[in-house]
Amino acid sequence: MITVNTVRAVKREIKKARADGKTVGFVPTMGYLHEGHLSLMKRAKKENDVVVISIFVNPTQFGPGEDLESYPRNLKKDSEMASSVGADILFAPDAEEMYPDGYATSVEVEGDITRQLCGKSRPGHFKGVTTVVAKFFNIIRPDKAYFGQKDAQQLAVIEKMVRDLNFEVEIIPCPIVREKDGLAISSRNIYLNDSERQDALVLSRSLFEAEEMIKKGEKDAVFIKEMIINNIKAEQSVAIDYVKVVNSMTLLDIDKIEGDFLIALAVKIGKTRLIDNIRGARNDS
Amino acid sequence: MITVNTVRAVKREIKKARADGKTVGFVPTMGYLHEGHLSLMKRAKKENDVVVISIFVNPTQFGPGEDLESYPRNLKKDSEMASSVGADILFAPDAEEMYPDGYATSVEVEGDITRQLCGKSRPGHFKGVTTVVAKFFNIIRPDKAYFGQKDAQQLAVIEKMVRDLNFEVEIIPCPIVREKDGLAISSRNIYLNDSERQDALVLSRSLFEAEEMIKKGEKDAVFIKEMIINNIKAEQSVAIDYVKVVNSMTLLDIDKIEGDFLIALAVKIGKTRLIDNIRGARNDS
Repeated sequence: MITVNTVRAVKREIKKARADGKTVGFVPTMGYLHEGHLSLMKRAKKENDVVVISIFVNPTQFGPGEDLESYPRNLKKDSEMASSVGADILFAPDAEEMYPDGYATSVEVEGDITRQLCGKSRPGHFKGVTTVVAKFFNIIRPDKAYFGQKDAQQLAVIEKMVRDLNFEVEIIPCPIVREKDGLAISSRNIYLNDSERQDALVLSRSLFEAEEMIKKGEKDAVFIKEMIINNIKAEQSVAIDYVKVVNSMTLLDIDKIEGDFLIALAVKIGKTRLIDNIRGARNDS
Repeated sequence: MITVNTVRAVKREIKKARADGKTVGFVPTMGYLHEGHLSLMKRAKKENDVVVISIFVNPTQFGPGEDLESYPRNLKKDSEMASSVGADILFAPDAEEMYPDGYATSVEVEGDITRQLCGKSRPGHFKGVTTVVAKFFNIIRPDKAYFGQKDAQQLAVIEKMVRDLNFEVEIIPCPIVREKDGLAISSRNIYLNDSERQDALVLSRSLFEAEEMIKKGEKDAVFIKEMIINNIKAEQSVAIDYVKVVNSMTLLDIDKIEGDFLIALAVKIGKTRLIDNIRGARNDS
């Protein structure tokens, strides 16, 4: 695996790698890699000749008072992990390389899709995400790019940006990877102490219960939402940001479980913000 | 020359044309082609294997009360003219193809570069321009793209967008083409009646006079600006929007003629908005 830190160098390496019409898969990350990221890279390796991953803690997607400074970083370990699953090129620019002095351009998906859910409590977050992802797409020009379904809204927003701006890249959504006890794997889980870690299980437990209910025929989205909210409220350390049942593409609220649905939630446990979700499709006649 | 109206079709044609590593030059236009456009296409033809031109009167770059509806159109004649200078692919989508129902994404260069000059009297204009140009770049993926220097601010804004978002395209600025009497050629000149057409000559006449003064050693930007303003004010039918002496890359005001400078102006003659400019470089020790 080759590690590069500049736009010029990564373009040069990709140009070399692309010779003979090789395909390129891209996995953008903020580093502190875990099994979730590795699952994306393994899939990318299977589906492309060359795998490029980026590690960049993007300052423009963090709001004031969020955890930009404390966000966990470990480039050495990340590099070993990425290499172990067959990543070919690791692109790890610094902020100055991505946003040089006088930088002034943004890419923004407007409307409900970015205003709802996490967009409500993190204004400007998705504008930071779409801008940096647009830059990466232009730098790397991947055939396919891999995103985890854990960040369900991020995935929907990026898919919308790609459609609207006619980016020539196929977005590949990949399933959430969970710990054995159900907790969705996240770099931010490291912030949790033992008791918070235990309380956090209410998220996946409630989502699995919702899944069970839907399997048994429950269609009332409000009823399902209430169940989840009541479950979470029973854990004193867990503060709800939102619990939503929405269409998975538009992210608009639905009252009835049908079509492609997404049940998504965000909470704060202590100072740690966690998100989780399940999705499914139901096409009754 | 092949004419196509959909994103899918133009991508298919470009893919075919690109076989054997051919290079692609791109000339975006709003149609109603004139010698200025043709000069861009001729240059593109000289420097690339394949020339793609777009004709699209982009609604998002027109403000309320501007001339979107009345903007002159003549696709048949445009098609003949583009073909006559060797354009290979003409892409003429409609608004629905570029901005389908639910469209929500924008690309914006923020700051002085878009707020000053035309940005002041046309808020949102450059956001419309950068968004549609970003879409065209993603659809066509040209090696080089050609822009006239008549729209000096548009050129500076697009160059900034390309640098900031890491677009893989070389922007080629092309000189203003003028009528024999000096009037910068523009699709909007058709709006002028005979007497307005005559009055409009004050623009190029003043700019050429400024050029002469600078050649003779004048360095005082304010003095030059005053001369231009006084000239224009002598024509009763011409209302000044702005007269500016700026750095040609940042578009920030300069007091002294030095470095890469741009003298740009915008006026209204009757209902017609006209722009013109000259540029130069002065590197005194």
